[in-house]
Amino acid sequence: MSHPIGSQIILGIDPGSRITGYGVIQFFSGKPRYLASGCIRLGDRSLPDRLKILYDGLTEIISWYKPSEMAIEQVFVAKNPDSALKLGQARGVAIVAAANHELEVFEYAARNIKQSVVGKGSAEKSQVQHMVMAILGLEQKPQVDAADGLAVALCHANTTSNLIKISGGARVRRGRIVT
Amino acid sequence: MSHPIGSQIILGIDPGSRITGYGVIQFFSGKPRYLASGCIRLGDRSLPDRLKILYDGLTEIISWYKPSEMAIEQVFVAKNPDSALKLGQARGVAIVAAANHELEVFEYAARNIKQSVVGKGSAEKSQVQHMVMAILGLEQKPQVDAADGLAVALCHANTTSNLIKISGGARVRRGRIVT
Repeated sequence: MSHPIGSQIILGIDPGSRITGYGVIQFFSGKPRYLASGCIRLGDRSLPDRLKILYDGLTEIISWYKPSEMAIEQVFVAKNPDSALKLGQARGVAIVAAANHELEVFEYAARNIKQSVVGKGSAEKSQVQHMVMAILGLEQKPQVDAADGLAVALCHANTTSNLIKISGGARVRRGRIVT
Repeated sequence: MSHPIGSQIILGIDPGSRITGYGVIQFFSGKPRYLASGCIRLGDRSLPDRLKILYDGLTEIISWYKPSEMAIEQVFVAKNPDSALKLGQARGVAIVAAANHELEVFEYAARNIKQSVVGKGSAEKSQVQHMVMAILGLEQKPQVDAADGLAVALCHANTTSNLIKISGGARVRRGRIVT
């Protein structure tokens, strides 16, 4: 897939031990445009097989949409050690898949993602789905994990867009300000 | 590196968020032979950079020694959610690096690894180092994480070796009994 010069393609992901949601947006002239979203379902196979499905799925998305940046939710407090380990395994695979394809990776706190998309750091998941649909002009609500992927991509787009404003028109290249 | 026909090359690893220990052994005619061991140190860089160092380090080891199997410690109870998440990230990367290079992955409980190498499921780390040195005829104790990598590789070798005995001479190919 080819993109207009100067546009920024952002992959947002919401990794999980069973389902990883993803969203791909294009950010051009300060406006986000929806490209794709969905879920990678890891199924009931062995752990190595599940992690490989995740790695291969993300590799396919990266190869097709050619994002230059990946945004991912930062994990501050995990529920319990067992689920933290499982989440960590998926998260590690997602991050290394991005790093292996030369994407820069940015982490955002859940609170900041919700604040950026809904305007309220304590928003419900359904509000995130609704606002993602409204901002991107989608005809229907994306699936909940896909919406989280799109939300973190939008949060990153807003953040880098604000950085441009703050720096008085500096260009952002690969997520870093170019003066 | 080329190996004798019928020999089994096993990579054992002990992943961690800062240091991943590894050990590579060759198992031929029921006897283990030391090939390599060491640590991949992830340093103080960003999380994506650290995980990529781990992925690339394991890829280099796999490309050089061409193991067909990877053995890794199973995690039952992690200390706390934060360290479990960090361990999970490293663990996920290690497993997907193996899966991407078509290694079969086997998990062993810490208790079984110690039982297999030291003869006592509650052995101290220093005993593991000592016994790994003795079994493989090394001139000095391997570093503690490297010793853990060698120990899980030896545990896997013993397990597949016992499977051969139990099945009355069936060959083990790629960690599975071939009848």
